[in-house]
Amino acid sequence: MVLGLILIGFGSVGREFARLIERKRDEIKTRYPQDGGSRDLTLRITGIATGRHGLAANPAGLNVQAALAAVQSDGRLDGLHVGAPLRDNLELIRAGIADVLIELSPLNPQTGQPAIDHCRAALENGLHVVTANKGPLAHAYRELRDLAAQHKRMFLFESTVMDGAPIFSTYREGLPATTITGFRAILNSTTNFILTQMEQGISFGEAVRQAQAMGIAEADPSNDVDGWDSATKTAVLVNVLMDGDMRPTDVERTGIRAVSPEMLREVAGRGQRVKLVCSARREEPLTPFPSPRSARGEGERIIGRVAPEAVSLDDPLALTTGTTSILQLRSDTLKQLTIIEHDPEPAQTAFGVLADVLAIARHKVWEMIS
Amino acid sequence: MVLGLILIGFGSVGREFARLIERKRDEIKTRYPQDGGSRDLTLRITGIATGRHGLAANPAGLNVQAALAAVQSDGRLDGLHVGAPLRDNLELIRAGIADVLIELSPLNPQTGQPAIDHCRAALENGLHVVTANKGPLAHAYRELRDLAAQHKRMFLFESTVMDGAPIFSTYREGLPATTITGFRAILNSTTNFILTQMEQGISFGEAVRQAQAMGIAEADPSNDVDGWDSATKTAVLVNVLMDGDMRPTDVERTGIRAVSPEMLREVAGRGQRVKLVCSARREEPLTPFPSPRSARGEGERIIGRVAPEAVSLDDPLALTTGTTSILQLRSDTLKQLTIIEHDPEPAQTAFGVLADVLAIARHKVWEMIS
Repeated sequence: MVLGLILIGFGSVGREFARLIERKRDEIKTRYPQDGGSRDLTLRITGIATGRHGLAANPAGLNVQAALAAVQSDGRLDGLHVGAPLRDNLELIRAGIADVLIELSPLNPQTGQPAIDHCRAALENGLHVVTANKGPLAHAYRELRDLAAQHKRMFLFESTVMDGAPIFSTYREGLPATTITGFRAILNSTTNFILTQMEQGISFGEAVRQAQAMGIAEADPSNDVDGWDSATKTAVLVNVLMDGDMRPTDVERTGIRAVSPEMLREVAGRGQRVKLVCSARREEPLTPFPSPRSARGEGERIIGRVAPEAVSLDDPLALTTGTTSILQLRSDTLKQLTIIEHDPEPAQTAFGVLADVLAIARHKVWEMIS
Repeated sequence: MVLGLILIGFGSVGREFARLIERKRDEIKTRYPQDGGSRDLTLRITGIATGRHGLAANPAGLNVQAALAAVQSDGRLDGLHVGAPLRDNLELIRAGIADVLIELSPLNPQTGQPAIDHCRAALENGLHVVTANKGPLAHAYRELRDLAAQHKRMFLFESTVMDGAPIFSTYREGLPATTITGFRAILNSTTNFILTQMEQGISFGEAVRQAQAMGIAEADPSNDVDGWDSATKTAVLVNVLMDGDMRPTDVERTGIRAVSPEMLREVAGRGQRVKLVCSARREEPLTPFPSPRSARGEGERIIGRVAPEAVSLDDPLALTTGTTSILQLRSDTLKQLTIIEHDPEPAQTAFGVLADVLAIARHKVWEMIS
């Protein structure tokens, strides 16, 4: 079994993914796919499209080492291209040379584009889709989920929240017949790092500069410090785990600009720490006799919220420092389940993409997405 | 699709399971199985065998409410029986009235029997097996795993460690192409409760009596306080997650009898807490040129250990108090992933059994167990 993959975006995650499938080549070949059939899976990158390094496709498989070398030396991919010229990403998607689109293009947090168009074109052309880009989940989840079901293709997105940590596969496979009633989480590493530094008495501005020097904050840090990244991830979790229909702008959102070292000291004196907490809960409808099906979302409203909160030191959220992230799920079956991912790097995000690709090879779980 | 289930054991977990499938009946019917086919799943309990309340079978489905009422009033199940008499558990398994054996009999920690015989007979007779009993995993995992593969049946066991928390399904579905290199965990709620109480200055003996009064410690507490329960769970995790071949007696084991309130006070003065920590790691073979395949266990030894350890207050293990449990997995793909289950009760263990039953209905993942 050969799965042809095209990558849109070949930044740090895309390159780590290319290295990971090389490193795991033998294990993938001898152990997958796992759901019936003989085990002889080859993952073949047949196309790569980038913003700054051009585009290359080869139906027989690209030379991955050459592609890595070209991009790392700030060169072009075009010299690796075989076949008729392709003008843009959509032509690559429609070229009929792949089974799976891997969407790794830069996020546009306001619109989710052009990633949504990429996902839509892929599903309409019979490709499965794996996205590490949050945009399609925050802005077009229901449409893409239904489009995938209609075309009997998979639409997977493990790496959109908490990198490669198995959040969505746990929900899909480990929590069947379960209603998620709410969650609490710390999902933005930049603000978590800034708050951790400010606890040492460093000012907000200086902590932002440190984060920028480390490469974990943008030149314009507002996407992180004003809570937009957290709000986007909150909307993704609400849409997927709670069957909601939420956009980032629907999330009640307060960033960390008003947090001061003095506030952190005062809170520490009470045995607490300030964290930028993402949360969601179901609000019961105001009816005297709620329907027994209301737990599935009928008639009730889901409230999503991002705000600095003082958390007690005996709460696992308080231990979540630096770039570590945490998700606490409340449900009607398991009460409370907590998942912590420790200090992820791009290699962990790339692993989440591989897990999704292997799920496509392994299972035919169309039904889960319909 | 109808799945006939027989339960061996009808204690608190079995009764919670019976209530859970009643409560989730509509959701199971309309949403499962999820892997192809029409969705119309009915779970039907066709046999129940107990140690003290007799045995009943009915190929058309037992009256579950009547079975619950009989056992709760300390009565007998035999009045519900329909069909030829069945003398014992093995005759029930071989009666051809079920698709799945649910093994919930009391654990014999030394031998794993008679649960191993139940699992073996079920697989040989074409039944899938779900066990919440750790014995078969600690004493006969490889044999039963291979027997299941040979008969193309599933052998699942989510509830054997950390109740219903999705440990094994996360390993199976969320961590593909991954080598677990080690773990740390707190898995025994009785000792964790005792240590939490002793931190308040209460003696070991008094804390044991409190645990006994609460029903979380046995009259003879040695299975917990001498670390046998933790060692059994450590062996299960090593066998399943690390492809080991370990018995509880192979685990280096120190219980908590030597821990004193004074020791806990001294450790607290250093910003630490004492926990009964389960752990495992791979020990590299003593060769100058280790084989590149050694990560899969060839030539190397796995060390399993249970011992009181002083853990720092900024370690999530230190926050694990009362009956909460925690597992930290280290791997070659995700670095470190932590899963915490908060204050489980029998209903959560029953949920793990349901998750396994729905996995049987949903997927044909024979390959994962071979």
